[in-house]
Amino acid sequence: MRAVQFSRFGAPDEVAEVVDLPELSPPGPGQAAVEFLAAPINPADLLNLRGQYGIVPTLPAIAGIEGVGVVTATGPGVDHVRVGDRVLLGGGTWRQRHLLSAAGLFALPPGLPNEQLAMLTVNPLTARALIHDAQLQPGQWVIKNAANSGVGRAFFTLAKKAGARGIAVVRRPGLEDTLKGWGAEVVLVDGPDLAERVKAVVGDGSLPYAVDAVGGSATARLGAAVSPGGVVVNYGLLSGEPCHLSGVDLVFRGVVLRGFWLATWFQQTPREGVVKAFAELIDLLAAGELTTPIEATYPLEHVRDALRHAEKPARDGKVLLVAKP
Amino acid sequence: MRAVQFSRFGAPDEVAEVVDLPELSPPGPGQAAVEFLAAPINPADLLNLRGQYGIVPTLPAIAGIEGVGVVTATGPGVDHVRVGDRVLLGGGTWRQRHLLSAAGLFALPPGLPNEQLAMLTVNPLTARALIHDAQLQPGQWVIKNAANSGVGRAFFTLAKKAGARGIAVVRRPGLEDTLKGWGAEVVLVDGPDLAERVKAVVGDGSLPYAVDAVGGSATARLGAAVSPGGVVVNYGLLSGEPCHLSGVDLVFRGVVLRGFWLATWFQQTPREGVVKAFAELIDLLAAGELTTPIEATYPLEHVRDALRHAEKPARDGKVLLVAKP
Repeated sequence: MRAVQFSRFGAPDEVAEVVDLPELSPPGPGQAAVEFLAAPINPADLLNLRGQYGIVPTLPAIAGIEGVGVVTATGPGVDHVRVGDRVLLGGGTWRQRHLLSAAGLFALPPGLPNEQLAMLTVNPLTARALIHDAQLQPGQWVIKNAANSGVGRAFFTLAKKAGARGIAVVRRPGLEDTLKGWGAEVVLVDGPDLAERVKAVVGDGSLPYAVDAVGGSATARLGAAVSPGGVVVNYGLLSGEPCHLSGVDLVFRGVVLRGFWLATWFQQTPREGVVKAFAELIDLLAAGELTTPIEATYPLEHVRDALRHAEKPARDGKVLLVAKP
Repeated sequence: MRAVQFSRFGAPDEVAEVVDLPELSPPGPGQAAVEFLAAPINPADLLNLRGQYGIVPTLPAIAGIEGVGVVTATGPGVDHVRVGDRVLLGGGTWRQRHLLSAAGLFALPPGLPNEQLAMLTVNPLTARALIHDAQLQPGQWVIKNAANSGVGRAFFTLAKKAGARGIAVVRRPGLEDTLKGWGAEVVLVDGPDLAERVKAVVGDGSLPYAVDAVGGSATARLGAAVSPGGVVVNYGLLSGEPCHLSGVDLVFRGVVLRGFWLATWFQQTPREGVVKAFAELIDLLAAGELTTPIEATYPLEHVRDALRHAEKPARDGKVLLVAKP
């Protein structure tokens, strides 16, 4: 059984190794055997391989934090998932076969592509949790940078459903049609005068909530753009720099900077809340409103090529690992 | 009547001018005439002269945000302050004489030095508001940088009274005895490894609250030092740089960055809360526990020399303007 393992932290395409692991035993009571189908390469995966993620794994470790697989066998006492059902995977997903406690699995509806289901957890769930956290009132504005990211895809869709008006901030031109297609009302290219351009858009309206995935001075530009008393929530570290926030915005305008981490959300959200969130996202995906662009897929065995691709800037979609056809 | 006025924003010692203003009329009903005694030069005054403070004044404006004066005459219907009482001043304080609504004045107790009373509002009240905001439990740690500042003087005294253990962070060695005399338990010189040294001090204890007056990477070092879920509160901009906070601390450790501004505190605090706060601080001052070091005093007429002095780094105390002896 092939798996992507790392025994040290470092450059993802150097430390990720395809290894052969012993075959797993057949599922025991309450267990299910699951065969890998697809998993995206998220920024969090790259951090994990570098030893910079929030939970530093014990080495050697299997890479991959989300994905989708298909049930190939079930043990005694398992009846809520059946052979042939597709299920979401979490934690060490980049391996051909999994032996899992069935209690945490639920059957995904048929008819949706493996690749889209594989990306359902990390990004759309983060977007949904952020939109809930924002408690937006209809007509209020909301802003997010790195808007053409996986989280951005779901964020603007969900913001629009909540009646809010989305401002999408991107790092390069040419993405306006895409972002407006996702539900953003205004698309702005980031730059030193971002806050002024945002204020011209918002006018007398309210912009209480900003979402930052970039860090560095990009965070400060969102902090300068939100309304007095507004909040900037960071969930991503794309620039590799610490988040900045002007003292003027902190002290005189009462702007707050805090972070969001999906692991904390899972800890704090009761099981029924998690199930409800996934059900909503699956409905949106089935309605064609949550399709995340894909730039390339690689078989698990070509993980190093896939990692190099995933680290390139200015991609037009996600890079995924998939089972061999 | 002399006053320190500015008609444009810029370098404080260039834009501050000593001007002659027309004499004030005698106090009418509900009014009091007050003669200037003393006022400190705070960092907020320097920001105000540069046009970088939270409230940008209409020009020309009289400088000075706090101070103390003596009542020289009262109008009809004023009986809670009398001629000879000393009172706190706020807003345009750097002028020889003031005509004020007596409703906002209260008589200060005799026997305390003018200079100390003149410094009672901006720094000690900020310190007290921060300590209340921190909601510290006895035995918890609390940390503050620029610890030898005016706010620091009161902060460690009040933290110790609340049963908390203070970590004082300073930018140069040689201040340990002073800070420990003010109530700090540990004194550390800031540097890249600050968080590690703080963690060695705190051990299994809790450090939920940090106060930052510096900005830049100094903020990030406090953010790395606080316990998970801790808060960093910025109230000062001594470095002139935006506050930094690591994404790791924001996202994975749930650290929050927000600001504190005394003007907001005044807006949000009922009159009786303000009076209670001043009464506590006056008691502490009378007990000798709140004496702020003074480096120099200048007559109002020599304001430009005083401003140059106040902008020098590594002072050992405040620079004040005083009435001519």
